[in-house]
Amino acid sequence: MEYRRVKDQEIYDDLSQKDVESLSGRTLSSANTSGLSYTGGAKGKSSWKLKSVVTLALTLLTSSQAILIVWSKRAGKYEYSVTTANFSVEALKCLLSLAALVRTWNRHGVTDDNRLTTSFDEVGVYPIPAVLYMVKNLLQYYIFAYVDAPAYQILKNLNIISTGVLYRIILKKKLSEIQWAAFVLLCAGCTTAQLNPSSDHVLQTPIQGWMMAIVMALLSGFAGVYTEAIIKKRPSRNINVQNFWLYIFGVIFNLVAICVQDYDAVMNKGFFHGYSFITVLMILNHALSGIAVSMVMKYADNIVKVYSTSVAMLLTAVVSVFLFSFRLSLAFLLGSTVVSVSVYLHSIGKLQPQK
Amino acid sequence: MEYRRVKDQEIYDDLSQKDVESLSGRTLSSANTSGLSYTGGAKGKSSWKLKSVVTLALTLLTSSQAILIVWSKRAGKYEYSVTTANFSVEALKCLLSLAALVRTWNRHGVTDDNRLTTSFDEVGVYPIPAVLYMVKNLLQYYIFAYVDAPAYQILKNLNIISTGVLYRIILKKKLSEIQWAAFVLLCAGCTTAQLNPSSDHVLQTPIQGWMMAIVMALLSGFAGVYTEAIIKKRPSRNINVQNFWLYIFGVIFNLVAICVQDYDAVMNKGFFHGYSFITVLMILNHALSGIAVSMVMKYADNIVKVYSTSVAMLLTAVVSVFLFSFRLSLAFLLGSTVVSVSVYLHSIGKLQPQK
Repeated sequence: MEYRRVKDQEIYDDLSQKDVESLSGRTLSSANTSGLSYTGGAKGKSSWKLKSVVTLALTLLTSSQAILIVWSKRAGKYEYSVTTANFSVEALKCLLSLAALVRTWNRHGVTDDNRLTTSFDEVGVYPIPAVLYMVKNLLQYYIFAYVDAPAYQILKNLNIISTGVLYRIILKKKLSEIQWAAFVLLCAGCTTAQLNPSSDHVLQTPIQGWMMAIVMALLSGFAGVYTEAIIKKRPSRNINVQNFWLYIFGVIFNLVAICVQDYDAVMNKGFFHGYSFITVLMILNHALSGIAVSMVMKYADNIVKVYSTSVAMLLTAVVSVFLFSFRLSLAFLLGSTVVSVSVYLHSIGKLQPQK
Repeated sequence: MEYRRVKDQEIYDDLSQKDVESLSGRTLSSANTSGLSYTGGAKGKSSWKLKSVVTLALTLLTSSQAILIVWSKRAGKYEYSVTTANFSVEALKCLLSLAALVRTWNRHGVTDDNRLTTSFDEVGVYPIPAVLYMVKNLLQYYIFAYVDAPAYQILKNLNIISTGVLYRIILKKKLSEIQWAAFVLLCAGCTTAQLNPSSDHVLQTPIQGWMMAIVMALLSGFAGVYTEAIIKKRPSRNINVQNFWLYIFGVIFNLVAICVQDYDAVMNKGFFHGYSFITVLMILNHALSGIAVSMVMKYADNIVKVYSTSVAMLLTAVVSVFLFSFRLSLAFLLGSTVVSVSVYLHSIGKLQPQK
């Protein structure tokens, strides 16, 4: 089934978007511990440093995710159920959020900003992104009636544009002309880097396929931007509390998915059937990436997230050359050049309004 | 022979670079007649208008060139000798320059700026670009020992970078950071637009092939920039006089080429053997394109020329969709997007220093 074929790819591609179901916080690492002191509106050099650290963490974790997937494929197909793995990721992130919170309570005591108890007013909007992703993931089953797997990989780059547009509309943040140009280049560059002889299939996509791809891009872009809005609405609120409430819905939704899809398999073979060392590594990596995404949402924004995951895609390919003796195509080199120029333009474009 | 295989392509690709052997002037069209009044340092709106007209003319002529070549290929292979065709182009441009000059003399009388007589000091440097191109064309015979035809098409995009770098070094004109970024994008975009399944061959190019390709790009970039320097050195000098002296060397060099390569064929079958209606159209188009290049060099610069010919390449492909039912590839669409963003960035980049 086409869906199943791209599912492995999905696991890490979506992580970066699906983070909404999976946003979680932790203060185990020094970067994140220090993060606690720079709550919300913290400005200046330390905030810039924090932003850089979380962005770098997201980039490295996302690129190592893809490498783990290639590695696990080389090691033979894995037999575990995807729904239990997703559940484990969500549960692990909840646990890490709680652990970080306990640590904070022990150090600084319980305050209004870090108490776990919440109001419906605060938490009522938290399931919305998760619902959006669920709809998007359902659509994913149907889009393969119109689009094949290589074309789907290409169409997913529409997420970049939808995130930019929705970021502008919903969060009302302006990008400069140069930054918009850079964003178009980022999309074109990422797509170019992924070109292969079957990519031209995308041009035969029927109108239904295009519509569904656009709706999916909008859903995923909207979920990402909405999560940023939720998290940033209360700048002084502890990120781990925010994440705990975001993730708890991820846990619930994935529990439902297990019951619907894999109930028999889990009952007969057990929850952790087919888990290997690589499976555990992948779950750990996904959980940590989710945390990094959450930090990027809190201390940077969706634009930074999109750049970070795009650069991660390129890093993965370069590292794969050494690890798996992949060969880089000319299209990849051209796409990487365009993405690099895009990153450069985004950074110099930012300076314009300050002049 | 590989060389022969790309020669048709060359005819029009090189025209834009080979213009040096073929720069010619005319004042037959209204644009060019008015050009005479805006000699050299003319500034302001009228100069901007003139620049736009010559750039548009170059773009349209270059793109129709490629279409004529496709058309002539469809009509069957042509039997004429390339050397006589090149000679005819040069000779036609010389004639057009003279005709334009005679018209100017009749209207405005003979002045210091439009007299045909020249000094060694002025004309001594004129053969240099032609010699550079001859060396480049000779190298072209040898590079195919290391590079195949599809790879050569890709490597020719190095011309874009070499022109930018030499423009900066020789003419000492600055490009803004954004314009440099745009120039890298132009090169990447043009290459992406030309990607096809055999393009990856270029990655197997041995070091000798790369060296020769780089030397050829430098020679052709240097010749273009040098011609601009020659023409702009005397801003008030009539462009038709400058072109006459440039082209007369083109006529001489091509006469030598006929004697060396096709002497027997011309003697036995006649000079115009194998010429068809399309051949005549192509010669006319080449001559007019040469004139347009010359005007762009006088009133704009090499950067504009590079953009103009790149956009022409894209225009050709789009027009071919309608004329010859070509199919556009995804790579072409992505490359065109990147080139379009590059043109946009080049234009907004230019505004920065004026602020």
